[in-house]
Amino acid sequence: MLDQNDTICAVATATGGALTVIRISGTNAMKAAGMVFTAKSGKPLAACAPYSSCFGQITDENGQVLDEAIATIFRTPHSYTGEDCVEFSCHGSVYIAQQIISLLIMHGCRQAEPGEFTQRSFLAGKMDLSQAEAVADLISSTSAASHRLAMNQMKGGFSRKLGELRTKLTELTSLMELELDFSEEDVQFADRSRIDELAATIEQTLTTLSASFRTGQALRNGVPVAIIGRTNTGKSTLLNLLLNDERALVSDIQGTTRDSIEDTAVINGTLFRFIDTAGIRKSDDAIEQMGIERSFQKAAQADIILLLTDCSQPEEERDTELENKLMPICQGKTLIRVHNKCDLLKSVPQGSDNDIYISAKQDTNLLQLKQILVKSAPTLQPDGNDVILTNMRHFQAVNRALDCITRVRQGLTDGTPTDLLSQDTRECIHHLSDILGEVTTDQVLQNIFSHFCIGK
Amino acid sequence: MLDQNDTICAVATATGGALTVIRISGTNAMKAAGMVFTAKSGKPLAACAPYSSCFGQITDENGQVLDEAIATIFRTPHSYTGEDCVEFSCHGSVYIAQQIISLLIMHGCRQAEPGEFTQRSFLAGKMDLSQAEAVADLISSTSAASHRLAMNQMKGGFSRKLGELRTKLTELTSLMELELDFSEEDVQFADRSRIDELAATIEQTLTTLSASFRTGQALRNGVPVAIIGRTNTGKSTLLNLLLNDERALVSDIQGTTRDSIEDTAVINGTLFRFIDTAGIRKSDDAIEQMGIERSFQKAAQADIILLLTDCSQPEEERDTELENKLMPICQGKTLIRVHNKCDLLKSVPQGSDNDIYISAKQDTNLLQLKQILVKSAPTLQPDGNDVILTNMRHFQAVNRALDCITRVRQGLTDGTPTDLLSQDTRECIHHLSDILGEVTTDQVLQNIFSHFCIGK
Repeated sequence: MLDQNDTICAVATATGGALTVIRISGTNAMKAAGMVFTAKSGKPLAACAPYSSCFGQITDENGQVLDEAIATIFRTPHSYTGEDCVEFSCHGSVYIAQQIISLLIMHGCRQAEPGEFTQRSFLAGKMDLSQAEAVADLISSTSAASHRLAMNQMKGGFSRKLGELRTKLTELTSLMELELDFSEEDVQFADRSRIDELAATIEQTLTTLSASFRTGQALRNGVPVAIIGRTNTGKSTLLNLLLNDERALVSDIQGTTRDSIEDTAVINGTLFRFIDTAGIRKSDDAIEQMGIERSFQKAAQADIILLLTDCSQPEEERDTELENKLMPICQGKTLIRVHNKCDLLKSVPQGSDNDIYISAKQDTNLLQLKQILVKSAPTLQPDGNDVILTNMRHFQAVNRALDCITRVRQGLTDGTPTDLLSQDTRECIHHLSDILGEVTTDQVLQNIFSHFCIGK
Repeated sequence: MLDQNDTICAVATATGGALTVIRISGTNAMKAAGMVFTAKSGKPLAACAPYSSCFGQITDENGQVLDEAIATIFRTPHSYTGEDCVEFSCHGSVYIAQQIISLLIMHGCRQAEPGEFTQRSFLAGKMDLSQAEAVADLISSTSAASHRLAMNQMKGGFSRKLGELRTKLTELTSLMELELDFSEEDVQFADRSRIDELAATIEQTLTTLSASFRTGQALRNGVPVAIIGRTNTGKSTLLNLLLNDERALVSDIQGTTRDSIEDTAVINGTLFRFIDTAGIRKSDDAIEQMGIERSFQKAAQADIILLLTDCSQPEEERDTELENKLMPICQGKTLIRVHNKCDLLKSVPQGSDNDIYISAKQDTNLLQLKQILVKSAPTLQPDGNDVILTNMRHFQAVNRALDCITRVRQGLTDGTPTDLLSQDTRECIHHLSDILGEVTTDQVLQNIFSHFCIGK
């Protein structure tokens, strides 16, 4: 476990910008910052009001000016970490940042570990663990949907839901223990109908939460879409159109790494993840057949399948054969038949949401196709208060909690002894507390915060 | 020319950090910022004290919370640009940054051009052009020396020097014009000795400034060092040792692009630029001879030449031949004979600063070699007040000014008419004013600031 008594410092901004922000947090933050920073006004940092900024110079141990900077003061408990904090806003030079961090270390600070500022915020009780985890999600959010899920979680939407569940579970335990107190008197459950009702409600809520994880994953990592079709139906052209149009928007932002969005695109605020499948050839060749199998396996990972055909080909060439093979994996998925090359038809049929005529080459009806994609994607409640699982750790804990409450319900039917059921109920509470970080081991905490960036 | 009346906004930090800072500057900065930001305290931004920060929420046009942020208020004229400014410190998400910039644009701001904040600072008279240029140099500084030069220039060291020169030039013009007033009375120069003295001092100062450019370039871009030697003397091993030891330090900093430091290394705070020369073979072959010529041409660009030999080879194999060929290009340079592979000798000779015995393989005496390199590099005054030209634009303007004053001195000797000399003196002043940005064209300004990053 990291030493909570250390005063920590870190560069909180990425290399290469106009500004560098350096964060210092801990008991000695004012003192250490005051050793390197001199306000132009001459006022000592320690005498500055909280939430005030002052202009001054950062000087090294020889009195050489390292930079002109703005220092902003935050006082315990009204800071991100809950501790005394100072932030320096300096010129964005790697050299200057390195020198200032060295100076701060010389004056007794320690370089912060990844996520250590947020970890301190969590340990100070300023946020629970699911909220702390949402901070990392917020930073990595790339679409309106993933941003909103992270923001709602950070603002405690998920925590409130878990709180409600815990209240019900606590009531359930109380009722069970009431019975235990009277067990020697051979009394049945004090209020059996209330107990049944509570257990059923809790199981229902946990089931819904668990089921929301698939949606959460889709919204966070991109709704998986497979484009499947024979060779020469225009698969690549369509894929590039869907990717590039939107990519141009993303790449407007300086420094966006194109590699990481290789196959994703944000359409109308929803992130889609396009799954590459090899073009399917008509062949009886065994090796070709294996390739087709592989494409089908990949398509099986998708939520939406675009079956691409070349509608300029004669009817018998169209893909009833492929479609028949595809049907078994389309269970529970959205299948959209996309008839490409409609520019070669004499007249373009009307089509529908599941049957659309496009020309990737001539950009015909692509907007409609995108609208259909967006319509087929999971949506969030307009009130913005969705509680949707996006985090694998939360998903696993919810599933463990669900197992417990399912055992309780089964036990209520089977007449399992009350002390065993009470134990399962307590375990259920334990799993929910784990999500909030109340019973979480140091190792799990360390693992969670190690995925944060330095300076957060 | 950019519209100075616009309120501008930009992301001032690079993508990928824990924090994003968004800068807003201009007459409507408070208003635009107030449209998107709501302080938790409920206090309107416009009512906040200058140099104060407040915590709150950034919401979009539908009232959805985009981020929790700290807003810091600066009021004209006490801000970087001299205008009203607001800075938002947000979570470091590309998506959030993009959304906030879009919102600000919706509320009447314009996305800032590269360097536009600094340009406004210059136009508001908060810094002269050479100081503004130093801001960009400061951000790109990678060593103690380049940092100190940029810092001294930003704090006005160079501007003061130019100011002193201008005072002398103005006095010179006055004296000349005093004579012009009396020219019809056929009076000689009013005070010829003072005029001669002034012109000589000015020429001397400009000559020193012009000559400092080579040092400035070396300190800014790296002191050029060529390692020259026959094949198999261990040139690559030595080069890698000199580069990698220090590279490891540089790459400690997140995000440093290795490509850009391909052949440079900071040793004891001084940046060195190692020039790659091909190994020289003993050969009478014409093509080989051309290769040797090319290595010599490259070595000619260096300030320091390391002549590498293999001292384990018999005396006749050592490089008197190569040394003789090298001598003509070593004029004005530091030549250091580096005898490598000293681990193969029975006893290692003492050596000197120009004659050092090392073993690149066994890391013998490499520290000494580095110390000799640092000793041979140009140094800065310990008072930190060096005025050294680092900027090509300044170098050119100084040379033009020097040409003018040289013509004036020549004219004083030749008896050139005073009105012509006065004109040359005025032109000399003009070139110095150009450095400070007082007579600089919009196109030159645009060119200068376009090399800044966005948000600076």
